[in-house]
Amino acid sequence: MFKHSQLESVKAWLVHPAHAAMPLHTRIQRAIRQLIVDGALGPGKQLPASRALAGSLEVSRDTIETAYAQLHAEGFIDRRVGSGSFVAEMKEFTSGRRLMQRDTLRDQTPNLSKRGDAMFRSGGVREMLTPRPFAHGVPDTRSFPLLLWERLERQVLKEAGSQALLHGDPQGAEPLRRAIADYVNLERGAHATADRVVVLTSSQQAMTLCAHVLFDPGDRIFIEDPVYYGARKAFDAAGLDCVPVPVDHQGIMAERITADPHKAKAVFLTPSHQFPTGATLELDRRLALIEWAARHQAWIIEDDYDSEFHYAGRPTACVQGLDPHDRTIYIGTFTKALFPGLRIGYVVLPPHLVKPVTIARTLLDGHTASIAQLTLARFMEAGHFGAHVRTMRGIYAKRLEVLTALVREHLADFVEPQTPVGGLQMPCMLTGGLSESTAIAAAQRVGIELLGLSALYAGDDGRAGFLMGFAAYTPHEIERAVKKLAHALHAVRTA
Amino acid sequence: MFKHSQLESVKAWLVHPAHAAMPLHTRIQRAIRQLIVDGALGPGKQLPASRALAGSLEVSRDTIETAYAQLHAEGFIDRRVGSGSFVAEMKEFTSGRRLMQRDTLRDQTPNLSKRGDAMFRSGGVREMLTPRPFAHGVPDTRSFPLLLWERLERQVLKEAGSQALLHGDPQGAEPLRRAIADYVNLERGAHATADRVVVLTSSQQAMTLCAHVLFDPGDRIFIEDPVYYGARKAFDAAGLDCVPVPVDHQGIMAERITADPHKAKAVFLTPSHQFPTGATLELDRRLALIEWAARHQAWIIEDDYDSEFHYAGRPTACVQGLDPHDRTIYIGTFTKALFPGLRIGYVVLPPHLVKPVTIARTLLDGHTASIAQLTLARFMEAGHFGAHVRTMRGIYAKRLEVLTALVREHLADFVEPQTPVGGLQMPCMLTGGLSESTAIAAAQRVGIELLGLSALYAGDDGRAGFLMGFAAYTPHEIERAVKKLAHALHAVRTA
Repeated sequence: MFKHSQLESVKAWLVHPAHAAMPLHTRIQRAIRQLIVDGALGPGKQLPASRALAGSLEVSRDTIETAYAQLHAEGFIDRRVGSGSFVAEMKEFTSGRRLMQRDTLRDQTPNLSKRGDAMFRSGGVREMLTPRPFAHGVPDTRSFPLLLWERLERQVLKEAGSQALLHGDPQGAEPLRRAIADYVNLERGAHATADRVVVLTSSQQAMTLCAHVLFDPGDRIFIEDPVYYGARKAFDAAGLDCVPVPVDHQGIMAERITADPHKAKAVFLTPSHQFPTGATLELDRRLALIEWAARHQAWIIEDDYDSEFHYAGRPTACVQGLDPHDRTIYIGTFTKALFPGLRIGYVVLPPHLVKPVTIARTLLDGHTASIAQLTLARFMEAGHFGAHVRTMRGIYAKRLEVLTALVREHLADFVEPQTPVGGLQMPCMLTGGLSESTAIAAAQRVGIELLGLSALYAGDDGRAGFLMGFAAYTPHEIERAVKKLAHALHAVRTA
Repeated sequence: MFKHSQLESVKAWLVHPAHAAMPLHTRIQRAIRQLIVDGALGPGKQLPASRALAGSLEVSRDTIETAYAQLHAEGFIDRRVGSGSFVAEMKEFTSGRRLMQRDTLRDQTPNLSKRGDAMFRSGGVREMLTPRPFAHGVPDTRSFPLLLWERLERQVLKEAGSQALLHGDPQGAEPLRRAIADYVNLERGAHATADRVVVLTSSQQAMTLCAHVLFDPGDRIFIEDPVYYGARKAFDAAGLDCVPVPVDHQGIMAERITADPHKAKAVFLTPSHQFPTGATLELDRRLALIEWAARHQAWIIEDDYDSEFHYAGRPTACVQGLDPHDRTIYIGTFTKALFPGLRIGYVVLPPHLVKPVTIARTLLDGHTASIAQLTLARFMEAGHFGAHVRTMRGIYAKRLEVLTALVREHLADFVEPQTPVGGLQMPCMLTGGLSESTAIAAAQRVGIELLGLSALYAGDDGRAGFLMGFAAYTPHEIERAVKKLAHALHAVRTA
């Protein structure tokens, strides 16, 4: 009592490779259900007798009975003793196919919310999955002591057992918070205790969380100009009114902020090595901003994203450690010091913000994966973190030196390198008359990644240039890529 | 030239246990910096000569010189040849101590945003770190095959090497998305492909993400009444206007939604086993809601949070698989089927929402940890996931049986158990005149966790009762706890 086409449709379902893992009776049940849902078998239509369908499909009658029983249990068919099985009357149901035809007349836009649409149009924060020169912000994962890490994880799991599989403290595992507090106190001159640390998945999450817990849509906050795009997008997505403040070679021009007559809720800073210029925020400006924040009950959001890697002398202490008024939120991450796939970042908070931020975090995504937190705590406690950072600092310093020399040698016609005191990337300013977009497109065509600088500025008068990430590439890879880039740029200039 | 108190303060810094890991010169530098920041050493003040300070502190002169050099590099002191070292004039800086005194006059509230304050007041979603009977929603992690998991992780790391440490696809690792699609198609009757899956950290993140991407503050959405508190809090935090719709023994009363004359953007459902009642949403209602959503271009948010554990026959297929119009967002999680500390959940999306949701996710927190994703994919591909779920289904079914029998035996004077067809907890309705708050408080006093039902209702007329989680506890633990609870309830009744 199936039409030929219906029988064919059921047979097609049975042999479809995507359904190979399902038991036969499930495949038959699904195939018939699909006919019903699609409207090909309308309400009241009689189904073939199980014996007849078993014959047509060359399966046992039991298989058909099992499929029918399931369809019945789900309410798709009625079974009447002595007269057979019928598609149930589902009164509210306009079958899919009919409704689908109406649908095609409608506009096919995804109907996102206003804020969802704004996030979509921002393009989000995409990272390179397989970094190639000169993608920025990526550490060298090839030098990571993975076997050691695995050994520590095994130790941790042996000791903690199934306890490590349970829900974790949303503020973060206590041993890790302690290790982080010790580290930022010692290496970054912070004033932290384990109680004031909240473990997150990334600095991106820290920025999103702060933006929501501390600010409402329309609130004004000062940001650096040029600025780290991830921060800008997080604040925009939260509906904040971002006010760009120019950066010079001593960092953000703090006097513009302290002299601004309008109320603002915060300033976002990358004081160690400003992103993207590399400038270190000068002490007087730090102190001026600390006083401004205290006076206006505003916040300083300090993103200390790659301060582990400082190549010229000791790095300046972080703003948080200088701030006696608890107006600074310190953001750190292990993405650059260890590896991006780890997904551990953190904030050091003023005491009275710890609870509100932790609670907001439970609403966002609960907590950070426990095993990784405990392994990292062990890695830090045993001194491996400090050792790894020191090793990588040496490797990266050398790579920066190699890159600078190669740029001077091969790209002198095009750019002026601005060797930074730290970090994982070097800004280069275009000097030779080539436009930024031409240079970046030419590089892209030969498989070289450059992040244009002008798009990081708020206005149209941003400086033309690009960032060259160097940390993830060996000197040999850097040399090959610089030569390839030089070749590509020469070619477009003469074209 | 230090006052006695200043010298004592420096000495105290040197011997403080928290600073034990710092080199001596760093400790001295920090101690002096603190005196400056706190205002104890004002601008222009002369520092002791390095030889004199070395004598007072009983350290070498080189140590003092190193500390002074660092203070100079940071801009805290000026060094004048022939006349010594002086605290720098930092014109913008009002020292900490003085400002601190002004601060104490101010109100000490945390000045959160309106939305931050609302999140704070919601209390967030707290989970038990060490579950004890009868905490709900917790799986048995003691039965998890941890050694097998570790072995698969080692395999994955051996094969992927440092590639596994890099940034991952924000949509989720492709092998895991494929395994999830196969699983939900086979076991939940979904229509999924790897392209339509986005891997997240939890169902909580899925709800927060949907709330932001699809809805603006003030948008109306229907929710179940009673409702899962985590969903309600996520939607409230996103500023949505939640409209409660009563649930009866066939699930949410869909006719209230289809008959509602006011525009709404979505309905949130837990159709497999409604939280907390355990009701399964009946087929006619599913179909009615699918049609309603298609007609109004509204969304169905289907949280299929513990559908793996269905004890009576086969579970009904999910709503997503019945919806031919792509208006359903299916949310799944491994928190209950594997372990909470894993932090992997997912959504199956209509095709045109995949990009917007993935992009929004990069703004929230980037992506899910890669190693855990690849290990889980391997666990699923090799059939271990299916086997584990089957094992646990048997264990949990037995525990539910034990709990039901024990409640009937020992708690018949107080409650009527509502044995659910699936899930990890059983609702019990209070029948013996004891108030819900009295019962829960009495249980709490003897170390027993019960989640009250009435607070999950929108109005004040919610039914009195509590949820008893049973999955994480052995029959022996359940028996002991039920007897203890019976004893405690008898005691408060006779008191």
